[in-house]
Amino acid sequence: MLLMRYCSHRFPIPCEKRLTNFSRRSWLAAARGNLSCSFAQNGNMDVSLSNNSTFSGMEDVLMGYIFGKEKATRVAHLVWKHVVQKGDTVVDATCGNGYDTLAMLKMVADGSGRGCVYGMDIQKDALENTSSLLNESVNPIEKELVKLFTICHSRMEEVVPKSTTLRLVAFNLGYLPGGDKEVTTTSATTILALQAATRILASGGLISLIVYVGHPGGRDELETIQAFASELSVEDWVCSEFQMLNRPLAPVLIFLFKR
Amino acid sequence: MLLMRYCSHRFPIPCEKRLTNFSRRSWLAAARGNLSCSFAQNGNMDVSLSNNSTFSGMEDVLMGYIFGKEKATRVAHLVWKHVVQKGDTVVDATCGNGYDTLAMLKMVADGSGRGCVYGMDIQKDALENTSSLLNESVNPIEKELVKLFTICHSRMEEVVPKSTTLRLVAFNLGYLPGGDKEVTTTSATTILALQAATRILASGGLISLIVYVGHPGGRDELETIQAFASELSVEDWVCSEFQMLNRPLAPVLIFLFKR
Repeated sequence: MLLMRYCSHRFPIPCEKRLTNFSRRSWLAAARGNLSCSFAQNGNMDVSLSNNSTFSGMEDVLMGYIFGKEKATRVAHLVWKHVVQKGDTVVDATCGNGYDTLAMLKMVADGSGRGCVYGMDIQKDALENTSSLLNESVNPIEKELVKLFTICHSRMEEVVPKSTTLRLVAFNLGYLPGGDKEVTTTSATTILALQAATRILASGGLISLIVYVGHPGGRDELETIQAFASELSVEDWVCSEFQMLNRPLAPVLIFLFKR
Repeated sequence: MLLMRYCSHRFPIPCEKRLTNFSRRSWLAAARGNLSCSFAQNGNMDVSLSNNSTFSGMEDVLMGYIFGKEKATRVAHLVWKHVVQKGDTVVDATCGNGYDTLAMLKMVADGSGRGCVYGMDIQKDALENTSSLLNESVNPIEKELVKLFTICHSRMEEVVPKSTTLRLVAFNLGYLPGGDKEVTTTSATTILALQAATRILASGGLISLIVYVGHPGGRDELETIQAFASELSVEDWVCSEFQMLNRPLAPVLIFLFKR
């Protein structure tokens, strides 16, 4: 789902990604060296770079984000890892092309058959792409931990069992890269999905949103989410937002942590 | 400067701060344990906890921020450490009670007499408090690396030598805790100070802003800064913002990194 978004936002891929043991000093050098690596338009290359990246720590990734050398999605995935454990149940509310679904599966699968990813998308194409990606990336036993539904994320409560202890609900809002750009997530259904997510999320769980604002209605959708988050009780929720101020098309990261 | 602000924002101090080697698992436990430690209203205690904190890594601090267990200022100080090296020259544009000035001095002082902190504040009381804090905290040789000026931050170019390679300009915007709350930083002078900072900052340097919005005019000042940052060229600047969506009085973190 994220490939074309990466392209459309033209996030630079830092040369330092290929270095190992990326230290503070290296960051300093990178920050001061003003590296300007060209962005690969090839989605697969982008994903493979992402997978092979040696930016393993939150520190490097956050610095990379602040220094414009890392993707918002890398920050999101690392934040997920701080909440999700092997064997957990999580929801990918917007499967898209399946890259987040796959990332979640790797976080919850422990080889013992525990762990579950409920994946949903309103577009059949998205779920087919997700299923294909899973077939290429994991073994059949792991894939069985993923339950895919062609359904609007606003109806997640219809597919996630009430008894589930849900640790993460992740949204990646916008349109399906490679799909019909007229079909996008909307404020009306996203707000219903957020309300549902707050109801079914476990205490100590996280709602993660990566909001792409480059499409018509994207900015309105962001404002709707910000308004929803600002109303959540401070006693029960910690709602944070990370965004780039001089990149109007860059995705906005929102984390709603349930105490 | 930050003591009363910490109090006014009632940031929780997590018990885990006292633990060493705070791991991801520990964070998970903290996140899931829903710890509710009481906040110490005593400023000195708060500072001493902060100084003794064993949250040494950006990863823990960022997680702490997202999980509502860490202060925005801790995130800012750790970001500074990724840009500032021993021997560097930096500016504290708003000394307040001197806690940021002291933190910067510790980052640049290397015992060889190199490094310099230009500290300024429009209020004489603030500089006296800063000077006292430095007297209590560092030796005379280190203190000599700090140059204090009773001047508006909008005039920083009058005190920072043109030849200087400036690595960091830090702002902590609002009023002087313990001082006259009628005296606050304002949009009019802050925008001039930001313009000055962008002129004198070295490539690879950082402008850091912690914006307190709880006072009259605070929200307007934030919007002025956001508008200024959004106009900075993407080729030359990476402008990021971190904020809490459901804590209207929580400080907003803004980093303007000069490529």
